[in-house]
Amino acid sequence: MLHILFLFSLLFSSSHASVQDFCVANLKGPDTPAGYTCKSPAKVTVKDFVFSGLGVAGNTTNIIKAAVTPAFVGQFPGVNGLGISAARLDLAPGGVVPLHTHPGASELLFVVHGKILAGFISSANDVYLMTLKRGDIMVFPQGLLHFQINAGGSKAIAVVSFSSANPGLQILDFALFANNFPSPLVEKTTFLDDAQVKKLKAVLGGTG
Amino acid sequence: MLHILFLFSLLFSSSHASVQDFCVANLKGPDTPAGYTCKSPAKVTVKDFVFSGLGVAGNTTNIIKAAVTPAFVGQFPGVNGLGISAARLDLAPGGVVPLHTHPGASELLFVVHGKILAGFISSANDVYLMTLKRGDIMVFPQGLLHFQINAGGSKAIAVVSFSSANPGLQILDFALFANNFPSPLVEKTTFLDDAQVKKLKAVLGGTG
Amino acid sequence: MLHILFLFSLLFSSSHASVQDFCVANLKGPDTPAGYTCKSPAKVTVKDFVFSGLGVAGNTTNIIKAAVTPAFVGQFPGVNGLGISAARLDLAPGGVVPLHTHPGASELLFVVHGKILAGFISSANDVYLMTLKRGDIMVFPQGLLHFQINAGGSKAIAVVSFSSANPGLQILDFALFANNFPSPLVEKTTFLDDAQVKKLKAVLGGTG
Amino acid sequence: MLHILFLFSLLFSSSHASVQDFCVANLKGPDTPAGYTCKSPAKVTVKDFVFSGLGVAGNTTNIIKAAVTPAFVGQFPGVNGLGISAARLDLAPGGVVPLHTHPGASELLFVVHGKILAGFISSANDVYLMTLKRGDIMVFPQGLLHFQINAGGSKAIAVVSFSSANPGLQILDFALFANNFPSPLVEKTTFLDDAQVKKLKAVLGGTG
Amino acid sequence: MLHILFLFSLLFSSSHASVQDFCVANLKGPDTPAGYTCKSPAKVTVKDFVFSGLGVAGNTTNIIKAAVTPAFVGQFPGVNGLGISAARLDLAPGGVVPLHTHPGASELLFVVHGKILAGFISSANDVYLMTLKRGDIMVFPQGLLHFQINAGGSKAIAVVSFSSANPGLQILDFALFANNFPSPLVEKTTFLDDAQVKKLKAVLGGTG
Amino acid sequence: MLHILFLFSLLFSSSHASVQDFCVANLKGPDTPAGYTCKSPAKVTVKDFVFSGLGVAGNTTNIIKAAVTPAFVGQFPGVNGLGISAARLDLAPGGVVPLHTHPGASELLFVVHGKILAGFISSANDVYLMTLKRGDIMVFPQGLLHFQINAGGSKAIAVVSFSSANPGLQILDFALFANNFPSPLVEKTTFLDDAQVKKLKAVLGGTG
Repeated sequence: MLHILFLFSLLFSSSHASVQDFCVANLKGPDTPAGYTCKSPAKVTVKDFVFSGLGVAGNTTNIIKAAVTPAFVGQFPGVNGLGISAARLDLAPGGVVPLHTHPGASELLFVVHGKILAGFISSANDVYLMTLKRGDIMVFPQGLLHFQINAGGSKAIAVVSFSSANPGLQILDFALFANNFPSPLVEKTTFLDDAQVKKLKAVLGGTG
Repeated sequence: MLHILFLFSLLFSSSHASVQDFCVANLKGPDTPAGYTCKSPAKVTVKDFVFSGLGVAGNTTNIIKAAVTPAFVGQFPGVNGLGISAARLDLAPGGVVPLHTHPGASELLFVVHGKILAGFISSANDVYLMTLKRGDIMVFPQGLLHFQINAGGSKAIAVVSFSSANPGLQILDFALFANNFPSPLVEKTTFLDDAQVKKLKAVLGGTG
Repeated sequence: MLHILFLFSLLFSSSHASVQDFCVANLKGPDTPAGYTCKSPAKVTVKDFVFSGLGVAGNTTNIIKAAVTPAFVGQFPGVNGLGISAARLDLAPGGVVPLHTHPGASELLFVVHGKILAGFISSANDVYLMTLKRGDIMVFPQGLLHFQINAGGSKAIAVVSFSSANPGLQILDFALFANNFPSPLVEKTTFLDDAQVKKLKAVLGGTG
Repeated sequence: MLHILFLFSLLFSSSHASVQDFCVANLKGPDTPAGYTCKSPAKVTVKDFVFSGLGVAGNTTNIIKAAVTPAFVGQFPGVNGLGISAARLDLAPGGVVPLHTHPGASELLFVVHGKILAGFISSANDVYLMTLKRGDIMVFPQGLLHFQINAGGSKAIAVVSFSSANPGLQILDFALFANNFPSPLVEKTTFLDDAQVKKLKAVLGGTG
Repeated sequence: MLHILFLFSLLFSSSHASVQDFCVANLKGPDTPAGYTCKSPAKVTVKDFVFSGLGVAGNTTNIIKAAVTPAFVGQFPGVNGLGISAARLDLAPGGVVPLHTHPGASELLFVVHGKILAGFISSANDVYLMTLKRGDIMVFPQGLLHFQINAGGSKAIAVVSFSSANPGLQILDFALFANNFPSPLVEKTTFLDDAQVKKLKAVLGGTG
Repeated sequence: MLHILFLFSLLFSSSHASVQDFCVANLKGPDTPAGYTCKSPAKVTVKDFVFSGLGVAGNTTNIIKAAVTPAFVGQFPGVNGLGISAARLDLAPGGVVPLHTHPGASELLFVVHGKILAGFISSANDVYLMTLKRGDIMVFPQGLLHFQINAGGSKAIAVVSFSSANPGLQILDFALFANNFPSPLVEKTTFLDDAQVKKLKAVLGGTG
């Protein structure tokens, strides 16, 4: 029976370096268009595939009464190259996750607790809205503007997953008002009034 | 100001057919290697993007004390072509989801309730095991054998997501013992004893 | 020498149906996540691979003094499945293509005539701005908000190409103000003032 | 124990339509950029996954003393969507498979019998040549010109596989001389002499 | 005529670094989700694209009377990034390649010598079995359990190719019995009897 | 209002490294099958996304009276990983871009100035020819032989884009006659006469 062992150990010993079903991110190494370079398989442990950060409620004592806790490849190196990642969404009563897109992934939302009004807008300019209850799932196609609002009287929690280890996140108000995007350009490319732009820049810390 | 409308309505009217950010599955139409053909965009509503079936506990009054409720493209047509899908996992005390693979997707598990002992085995033959608590996530790389076991005294619930709209599901015991796979071949290709094979075939309804 | 002919004609006759290097869209057939079904190769002519619509200036006598003429798969069936498409951009003096995204493709812009101020905003909230002159090219990564403005005193023309046959187009102002997206939700998810939202809805034909 | 059966039969009965690990081509249905639509899973048998045509020697009694027998999706529907296909190559003594490319796939050649001189030319214009003996494999990167020549005194046989179910095949001489490509254009775009072009057109049946 | 040379040499000299149709693996460099980093093109020779290891019979003087010789990227760096690789299969009379999966690729088997009984099991739990003779090919869809058995009285040889440079290889018995996967977990997740598990662990060197 | 800032700055600060919508090539770093490793996002500026080299006419005072100026990843690092690139084509009267292929991309040509006769040949050996005027676009499917000829009396200019950051470029005459490809092999694999081969080798600098 030792022959079986012998056969396969030969096979495995010679090919161990290339028998790699996963590629845990080496976050200190370079990134590539397909993800980070891989941590040495010999150093990989089960901890690389487990992340506990979504078990902790985000801090919603802020003006939007909401918090997003990501488990993208930057926080959770085990998803590198696997085409999937996650995040936790906490919405206090009245909380809202403002309009945003994920340039690199579709999103699937699962309501863990409470009620959430969610919606997205398509390229054809149609609005898809639904109030979701505990246990409902909703899918948001890649790259489209979408939002989530607490639709109940108590806190709401959702866990979302993405079709990429690194979905990206572009929050509309931050893209417009929380950087040095010159106000005249913001106004020219959005048709928003100067007063409106300056008001929100003041709130969100934008300059220009 | 009507000119803006005019400009864009021209643009949109001419390109409506091709401005399609999603492709809700027409399950009655043919399937293709990239997913089902698309339902007409004009007939798509928000209901196509929402699925409520994961809000209902699966029936765990069975021998494995577990239930899996899928939200793959077959149940949830909105995920067609979006590279993501989901499922719900219910584990009564003592419940187990036996060893299985998803040939077409990586899996990300989120523990909604209870404690779950989960694990997978790599091509290099290493075993990655962890007991997960509420809020933990774990990722299982595509195509590898993995399992989940209730590790606490009360029911456990998890929601899992996949990096494909159609991940597939090959349950080891069913592949071996619940079909007409001839017993001599099962034995020759697994080294299992004849008595063992026949015992499990009897339990799981296999023939041959 | 006839034997060569014989050999290859056999080869070609038997495999003609499957030797298909392209898949010209049958726009009357169903769409799929990978593109439209293919027109019969026997009916394909060179006209399927040529499009003359970008040779005609778009009508810029409108409020934004700009026009976009698409050559996506809906207008140019020959690009189906080839991962590329194009559009023409006309900007009269003062013209602007407002903030928009392409959910399904990166964009490469080539300035044919005039000067164009172009920019995009990243997920990290950084603004990348440049005034482009004739002959310059600029690339806009997939899914990010970007815009183009005529930066000279005369008309400007650009031809843009995309990394998909069907890049999609989500114009920010139309997603917010030109449909039935309820004003209270627009305000809640953008922090814009009610007056601002209603003013732009009036201009762009939005309801709710 | 019936409960296991009950559980899984429920699971399988509801999802049977979508649990599809393969997509055997329905060659009578439409093609798509990702491959043919799928034959109904209920009608799929093992015969769809097996092809015997490569077991028969091609007829090499022709001027090039060679024959190529394809097992692409058009001949072997089981490979549809699986990213792989094959072909058999027979080379009588002195036989040659002239310069050609596969626009849609890389190729891997395995020498079953005899000796074969194979080569490819890269974009950087480098020539990679090797005489292969029985059991050797050689890989030809996608889209590059390559050839195979019998390098021994007896017949040579190779089996080749491709990284696509439909790799395409463009034989240089046929692209130039075996169709209605006008001779003046052939000459202008290849620098070949008129006499040379007309000589080969006569041999290969070209017109114009 | 020197002008042609001048033109193209300029073109090539400036773009040589990026004109790379292949990416021969630098096995000493880091791996990425898309494969290894590339060996410098200047150091690439034809030997990188040729592998002779499959020309040598594997040692089948073992208990399974079979041997698998891989030509994956780890052994054959030229296939890196090309979506293809290969292996040789030797089966002495009575030999068997036990149930296994390739998590990352579909497989195409070509019978070089002898008779082979091959089979795979689908997600839908169907068994596809066929006895293959010399020259037959069979395709095994990605991620599904499959096996090969010598079905004749003499040695059998097959060459298999894969739709990935790194298909992975998970042998069922080794995943279950040849590592430190704790026996109680094996039993709970497979329904196998304790005696059976311990018997095979003893044979295959498993612990726990 | 600071709470919004606080919330998002936390989000952004922790995930900045992974929130990367682009991957500007570090041309000094290693290449991979998916493109070059990424320049540090902190060092990226708008200049990385802009390229001015296509604004300058190529030198057409050569025998083919044509010039190709590439903006592939090697010249324009911003396109790395974005699936798009470009080039400029200058054709003096009588100019010709000889038959060539791009092994890694489809091409879309836009006529900026003049008239161009363009064509490609399919795997099925069909020739697709068209004389294009200013503003016309034509698409050339990946990997197929194609050419462009000035079809007017004045200079012609085109800008072409590709469905890859690194399309590759194999010029037929250079593959055959401008390297050390041995003449007997060229002749055997193309059926060209020895005199023809040696004549063109002399012109293009080939040896062997």
